[in-house]
Amino acid sequence: MAGDRPRHVTIREEGPREGFQIEPRPYPLAERAALVEALAAAGLRSIQVASFVSPRKVPQMADAEALFALIRRRPGVHYDGLWLNEQGFHRARATPGVDLEGRLALYASDSFARRNNDCAADEMHARQARWLDLYAEAGVPLSRAIIVTAFGCCYEGAVPPRHVVGLATWVDRLCRERGQVLPEITLADTVGLAGPDEVRRLVGMVREALPETRIGLHLHDTRGLGLANVAAALEMGVDAFDSSVAGLGGCPFAAHGDHRAAGNVCTEDLAFLCDRLGIGTGIDLGALVEASRLAERIVGRPLGGRLMHAGLPERRAA
Amino acid sequence: MAGDRPRHVTIREEGPREGFQIEPRPYPLAERAALVEALAAAGLRSIQVASFVSPRKVPQMADAEALFALIRRRPGVHYDGLWLNEQGFHRARATPGVDLEGRLALYASDSFARRNNDCAADEMHARQARWLDLYAEAGVPLSRAIIVTAFGCCYEGAVPPRHVVGLATWVDRLCRERGQVLPEITLADTVGLAGPDEVRRLVGMVREALPETRIGLHLHDTRGLGLANVAAALEMGVDAFDSSVAGLGGCPFAAHGDHRAAGNVCTEDLAFLCDRLGIGTGIDLGALVEASRLAERIVGRPLGGRLMHAGLPERRAA
Repeated sequence: MAGDRPRHVTIREEGPREGFQIEPRPYPLAERAALVEALAAAGLRSIQVASFVSPRKVPQMADAEALFALIRRRPGVHYDGLWLNEQGFHRARATPGVDLEGRLALYASDSFARRNNDCAADEMHARQARWLDLYAEAGVPLSRAIIVTAFGCCYEGAVPPRHVVGLATWVDRLCRERGQVLPEITLADTVGLAGPDEVRRLVGMVREALPETRIGLHLHDTRGLGLANVAAALEMGVDAFDSSVAGLGGCPFAAHGDHRAAGNVCTEDLAFLCDRLGIGTGIDLGALVEASRLAERIVGRPLGGRLMHAGLPERRAA
Repeated sequence: MAGDRPRHVTIREEGPREGFQIEPRPYPLAERAALVEALAAAGLRSIQVASFVSPRKVPQMADAEALFALIRRRPGVHYDGLWLNEQGFHRARATPGVDLEGRLALYASDSFARRNNDCAADEMHARQARWLDLYAEAGVPLSRAIIVTAFGCCYEGAVPPRHVVGLATWVDRLCRERGQVLPEITLADTVGLAGPDEVRRLVGMVREALPETRIGLHLHDTRGLGLANVAAALEMGVDAFDSSVAGLGGCPFAAHGDHRAAGNVCTEDLAFLCDRLGIGTGIDLGALVEASRLAERIVGRPLGGRLMHAGLPERRAA
């Protein structure tokens, strides 16, 4: 049963960006910097710190530059920033401390693309060639293509897996035609519709189509199946996951109006699952639990992570 | 991959007992009766309504008789009560509306038995013969033996799976020697230590030792692995699970002092997982989500279920 299971997985932390972006008010820079530092100290090697998006639309992230300036960097850690358009990319490029990585984004659902990015899916896809040029010009290494709503969409319902495979092979070819190698396809369950069977099926189909390409998963725990889906993916050999400390975050367009609808899978619960399965993460679980509790103190309301509230298993005096 | 997967699973609801027992104050009878009725209306066929335990130690359950009297019963539903000693059993027997079932309880950890039941594990096991006699005298059908802390204990740490198998075969033999058939062994991850590998291993070992006996799981989501463990168990053919609506409850001795430490796996999230896997539960998910929201309104603070906050997947206007 553990034949394809990876020996080590990469966990990419998105809490500082995902989490604070969705909160209704901005949080002090010093607290957000302390959280990023605590996450790096716990062993996370890729941390998405902030997004470079419209300060008018997302005022919580207006101070992204100042946040990057404040962080005491730890060697070997990738401090990542998100952008959705060229203006954001140029802001990120101009910001010291941002470890730029070239991401592409494809939408498996046209309706979701229009709602989330104000742009038709086809138009988004056409723009990927432009992104490849921009990254090449700027010397930014290509990291991955993320397929948003790969497991279905709240507007269009089910997405045929073959459509997702088509997008994956299309973007892979686009990169090859320009002499670039796409290292990873990330399949995103943006609105929390996947179950373990859908994960196994889609991962298997994408791997068959692109056997040389790493497959990553960006899973939301919207309906509680996040870690069951991770467990299924691990058995398929998936070794890269995006997650949020303490379960911070969520997608404002994905929830039914309840701000407690869960966001990304929870980093420390995911790391605990890997630990239980004997899969390495490079993470110090105790330190990560401390970081998750710091996140909860900063946000100021109970967050959805489990391990952070129960604590690590330890033997107590009887 | 779905070779052993059951086509239908039994989900036994324990929220009304587990949940309100752990809350710091009693809740109105009418509200708790309404919750039980909502759960039955959603299609749950086994509902643990209350416990018959010391009113001094657990004042929240002192009104168990009155609660049973208030519930408008639905045909085909098993309304269950919990007892831990003979006094409690006789109270339950004397209460109209309690669907008595003969449960046995074994402790894989002696320290936990002493803390939870004020009795050594060996002594608890010796008492099971007495329980079999009591059930036989009262004409109460034997339902199952629950092995508490089967996946480890917060005082003793890891529990060797062979020890659990030994308990299972011992209790099975005890029943046979008295001419009774033990229909089910329920393995309880009382403090939330199991991962999917431990579930697969122990279920496999118990099944090998007792191939004719149904295996059930009582899993806690203490550290977030509840549904990943359920998914692993389903692949092993396990078809009986205990759970709590909205994730109500928890074990006061299992958490590290944080009342938000999760209790049983959440009924509606579990039912949603089954639904995604094409496994029947007999449950109306929409009605169950409504019941979970009722539970949250009664308790008066956010509960840990995911589906209840996100809502069922549905297509929205783009």
